[in-house]
Amino acid sequence: MNRPIRVTIFNEFIHEKGERIAKVYPKGIHSAIAEKLSALGDYEFTFATLDMPECGLSEEVLNHTDVLFWWGHLGHNKVPDEIAQRVRDRVLSGMGFIPLHSAHYSKPFKLLMGTLCRSKWRENDEKERIWVIEPSHPIADGLPEYIELPMEETYGERFEIPKPDDVIFISWFSGGEVFRSGCCYNRGLGKVFYFRPGHEEYPTYYRDDIARILHNAVRWAAPGNITPPSLGHFEALEQVHDKFAGQDDAARKHLNI
Amino acid sequence: MNRPIRVTIFNEFIHEKGERIAKVYPKGIHSAIAEKLSALGDYEFTFATLDMPECGLSEEVLNHTDVLFWWGHLGHNKVPDEIAQRVRDRVLSGMGFIPLHSAHYSKPFKLLMGTLCRSKWRENDEKERIWVIEPSHPIADGLPEYIELPMEETYGERFEIPKPDDVIFISWFSGGEVFRSGCCYNRGLGKVFYFRPGHEEYPTYYRDDIARILHNAVRWAAPGNITPPSLGHFEALEQVHDKFAGQDDAARKHLNI
Amino acid sequence: MNRPIRVTIFNEFIHEKGERIAKVYPKGIHSAIAEKLSALGDYEFTFATLDMPECGLSEEVLNHTDVLFWWGHLGHNKVPDEIAQRVRDRVLSGMGFIPLHSAHYSKPFKLLMGTLCRSKWRENDEKERIWVIEPSHPIADGLPEYIELPMEETYGERFEIPKPDDVIFISWFSGGEVFRSGCCYNRGLGKVFYFRPGHEEYPTYYRDDIARILHNAVRWAAPGNITPPSLGHFEALEQVHDKFAGQDDAARKHLNI
Amino acid sequence: MNRPIRVTIFNEFIHEKGERIAKVYPKGIHSAIAEKLSALGDYEFTFATLDMPECGLSEEVLNHTDVLFWWGHLGHNKVPDEIAQRVRDRVLSGMGFIPLHSAHYSKPFKLLMGTLCRSKWRENDEKERIWVIEPSHPIADGLPEYIELPMEETYGERFEIPKPDDVIFISWFSGGEVFRSGCCYNRGLGKVFYFRPGHEEYPTYYRDDIARILHNAVRWAAPGNITPPSLGHFEALEQVHDKFAGQDDAARKHLNI
Repeated sequence: MNRPIRVTIFNEFIHEKGERIAKVYPKGIHSAIAEKLSALGDYEFTFATLDMPECGLSEEVLNHTDVLFWWGHLGHNKVPDEIAQRVRDRVLSGMGFIPLHSAHYSKPFKLLMGTLCRSKWRENDEKERIWVIEPSHPIADGLPEYIELPMEETYGERFEIPKPDDVIFISWFSGGEVFRSGCCYNRGLGKVFYFRPGHEEYPTYYRDDIARILHNAVRWAAPGNITPPSLGHFEALEQVHDKFAGQDDAARKHLNI
Repeated sequence: MNRPIRVTIFNEFIHEKGERIAKVYPKGIHSAIAEKLSALGDYEFTFATLDMPECGLSEEVLNHTDVLFWWGHLGHNKVPDEIAQRVRDRVLSGMGFIPLHSAHYSKPFKLLMGTLCRSKWRENDEKERIWVIEPSHPIADGLPEYIELPMEETYGERFEIPKPDDVIFISWFSGGEVFRSGCCYNRGLGKVFYFRPGHEEYPTYYRDDIARILHNAVRWAAPGNITPPSLGHFEALEQVHDKFAGQDDAARKHLNI
Repeated sequence: MNRPIRVTIFNEFIHEKGERIAKVYPKGIHSAIAEKLSALGDYEFTFATLDMPECGLSEEVLNHTDVLFWWGHLGHNKVPDEIAQRVRDRVLSGMGFIPLHSAHYSKPFKLLMGTLCRSKWRENDEKERIWVIEPSHPIADGLPEYIELPMEETYGERFEIPKPDDVIFISWFSGGEVFRSGCCYNRGLGKVFYFRPGHEEYPTYYRDDIARILHNAVRWAAPGNITPPSLGHFEALEQVHDKFAGQDDAARKHLNI
Repeated sequence: MNRPIRVTIFNEFIHEKGERIAKVYPKGIHSAIAEKLSALGDYEFTFATLDMPECGLSEEVLNHTDVLFWWGHLGHNKVPDEIAQRVRDRVLSGMGFIPLHSAHYSKPFKLLMGTLCRSKWRENDEKERIWVIEPSHPIADGLPEYIELPMEETYGERFEIPKPDDVIFISWFSGGEVFRSGCCYNRGLGKVFYFRPGHEEYPTYYRDDIARILHNAVRWAAPGNITPPSLGHFEALEQVHDKFAGQDDAARKHLNI
């Protein structure tokens, strides 16, 4: 793309208004992510939070979004169904979608997956080691073979998701769990990347390695030059018996026809 | 399974009440399928149609269903959302689900896929050749390498579905289209198999080869002995330092411990 | 299948001839597996070891094998290339193949994968927790949501394999690694299931839960009624304009044609 | 990448030396492909043919190749096993590999797939319609929803390949066949894209749409910034109990630690 990638970050922005979490993310998780990404590429950011009209996700905003991040937890049910469906529909039309951490349980992710997306969890200050399973995938570009987060919330399998198109990361937790922490899907014309880390109590989104992953994911998920397939009634193949019908100019020229 | 597989066939049962289609399926598509399957295995059938209370799909019926077939076309929107969600939830709990032909556009299939499941189509009396792509998959058991239907409705790609876990069949149509006609998915604890053929104007479901596929699909989709994973809060691994903790009796006996 | 499944167990049978490992598997790993499986199903066993002519894997033996287990470690390079190719070819013709533990590095597995199948490892008496990722897959039938082995050799990602068709198990190790421990593949007409545990120093194969997995895997991998596709030159579709050409008897009868 | 992508095109270059095919590709298929690609991106080309020493694929050449095309047919068996293995090993180390048309049956492709890669075929001047199945995949970037080749050699399923990671294209042939014509795989650290069209008798590689696909495929297959995983013996996690161990500078600064 020759223009900035238009990234919208939806963050419910509830936890960070309490004193304890404000110490970690004083300007909100959305701002922290945007700051880190700004250092890595040419982005145009829009912020959307739960307290804005339409959660900040009007048709206008979504129609000008290439990739949408989603961070939510306490407020999942406060997002109107209509907004969740609007996000789903935009993904099907090509918008990239990157749900983070507890957004595995957000309405638009569940709509896109077709499952309830439940898992195990535990808040126990455990170490997380994120292993790169597909080192040549664009989302793993430039990463070491694992990333160690000294403390994170623990999530555990079985994660109730459809089989991912690609599993880029698998996490190890010191308390005994594993988790498919980086999962790619296609839905309609859009790409979806779920990424696990990012509990509000830990400064995970300030890390350079995590920022690199989000940067890679945006570039992977941003729509290219996609031709939407025609749908509905469709005429049968014309029974042309011309050997060169449809041959393009280059070929015709070459063959002197 | 040592007991009959409990198969529920939902058929909207609208077309067959008109004179023209009644000539093809006088007792309804559901009856034709049940008759053919009866010859192949030990099944216990329940019929469900749109004009029954709750579409014939009460909690009671679904809780006693191992595998649910779904045939619908004109009446998709007459199925209440609540019934569609009930079907979705039962699939996530382990029920097999086999949407047929135009049921690609039924509410429960769309809920489970997370996409709108649109495609191209044409009613043109074209020949369909269904090629077996995965000959060793249980759903292809005992089939020839292709099946030829002298006339069927044409469906064409792009079929707006998530990438299937397995594509068992790809159809060729004489008018110029291809279609992923047999697609397997897991959703939660349940298995889903979409199978394309079966337009109401053609006697497709009377064919032995088609019946064989449906029979194979039921056996593949029927739930086995599944342990539902525990979900939600989960304790960390106990730090046991006994070398044989958890070793089972056989091993203990062998090792004299 | 109405006859016993014909299972051949190849074990290089080297470690167990030393005093230390003989205490764990006095009759060899192959015998231990066969004994445990015998209790679970109707099997006909053949043993093959490195010191037999042709490694015990003559054309005759392989042609009468439904599913082949493979345990090897020290002797990988002593298996002649010709035997490895023979195994590969039989898998492509439909034989099931279940490489165990260090057989990830055996010649036939590497031939079938197309990669070098390397990984990390450590012998450190660590705990392994094997999480079930796909609880409704036939190989997970009847299992709890995880299995805990008090001590095993540690293997770690990245495991250099092609993306599996299905990942049934992911292991957690107390020293910080994860591993895709149960991986399904199709190759030609045959099914392959790699299963990680089974270091010779630990009594892993005496466990009931491990035996259950191997039993499930044999049943999943055993070939059904497969039609080998025709290959090579193939005639074009005959241009028949008979509407009912190819319609089977059932349909003709129904339609009075 | 900020430098030209280094593309090596191996072409056995046999057919084009005969009078009939020389009319179609007077300078060889390799030259035709290079000319078309040159118009689309910044590439540095190396040509390799069967009559060169080491088939033109010395260690030196391969070590300076980002993406390798392969066109072969009559000369498959003239490529020494050693060269085929060298290509395989380079793919496992990250080189992209794009076998074209009858290269489905080349030695390196078969080594990488682990199967014999056979299919049906027919030379019958049939029309081929290549349908885009995954319109948002980078290899489909900028393409219409199908491409029609007025005449091509026919290939038919079942194509004896492992299940592709992605099926980008499915072909329809007027004589009754379908074929998975654009298949993506990962092998080790390298990406593989098989693309079906390109029989030597037809001017397929002069087409703009075909060139666009090859251009997209090169960009998809070219290695990024990949960290090769460490392999072999690996130490266990250090049991550090420092809450911020491993935290990077940005996070430390933010948290004033």
